[in-house]
Amino acid sequence: MAYHLLERDRDGGRRLARQLGAAMDGIVHCAQCRDFSESERCPICASATRDGALLCVVESPADRLAIEQATGYRGLYFVLQGRLSPLDGIGPRELGLEQLAARLADTGVQELIIATNPTVEGEATAHYLAQLARQHKVRPSRIAHGVPLGGELEYIDRGTLSHAFGSRSEVND
Amino acid sequence: MAYHLLERDRDGGRRLARQLGAAMDGIVHCAQCRDFSESERCPICASATRDGALLCVVESPADRLAIEQATGYRGLYFVLQGRLSPLDGIGPRELGLEQLAARLADTGVQELIIATNPTVEGEATAHYLAQLARQHKVRPSRIAHGVPLGGELEYIDRGTLSHAFGSRSEVND
Repeated sequence: MAYHLLERDRDGGRRLARQLGAAMDGIVHCAQCRDFSESERCPICASATRDGALLCVVESPADRLAIEQATGYRGLYFVLQGRLSPLDGIGPRELGLEQLAARLADTGVQELIIATNPTVEGEATAHYLAQLARQHKVRPSRIAHGVPLGGELEYIDRGTLSHAFGSRSEVND
Repeated sequence: MAYHLLERDRDGGRRLARQLGAAMDGIVHCAQCRDFSESERCPICASATRDGALLCVVESPADRLAIEQATGYRGLYFVLQGRLSPLDGIGPRELGLEQLAARLADTGVQELIIATNPTVEGEATAHYLAQLARQHKVRPSRIAHGVPLGGELEYIDRGTLSHAFGSRSEVND
């Protein structure tokens, strides 16, 4: 990219440099959800049309974006900016879980949707979050894990297939 | 493979030819589950230790093998050897669904675990199977679909993420 800008588009490169510099200086964490934001509260937290009873916890801003694009979810988010990883020195404090606890206690959140990744650390974080939710009388829920849509059983890894088989659910009309 | 056998291992090639010929002549469909078998009933159907109250329907013998290797399932199987695909002329008759219906009616099956692939045709087949189960007062269930274990939300396709989000479930202690 650097070669392309140097050879063909020096003006574009200067614009990119200015924008990047402005972003580095101007983008802060949203005071409410910890996502990246240009203002003190991000547009989603500031929106009056989102449902404050639903709070979805994700690991990263990219995860929030993926959910926002893929689903019709109209609730709010809380972005951990990481996952519990004691060996790397990342504990509840680094993930802002005190802030989350305060939010569960004070605002009218009824369901905490835990959308951390289904990795080992993501599952540990999910377990911690579920306990935190219960302490504040909030119902914790977890996104579904299993065979991805369009996938073929034959090519699915054993762990996922075993989980999908074990957590089968009754088919309703 | 043919060049390797011709150059290095003509005896091995002859053994392979004999085995392949014997398999082509000797392997039949199990009379009970339609899987490939060397005898009239396959070892799983013939086993006295499997639980006859559980019947798992899969599309192919490879799917049955995957489930058998990945899970601790101790019930029986029914192998469709395909999926409903009217455009290709594959209907209930070609999948042996009359045989399946007779089995649901006669034997003590309590749960029909529908493990067809989560593709368009697999889902249509699953829908048909669920109706068939209900007609015979058997409880239909479907394996879980969602984010595969170890996957990251950011890289999951939108359809799967949307489904995983929509079919989230409450976290219990």
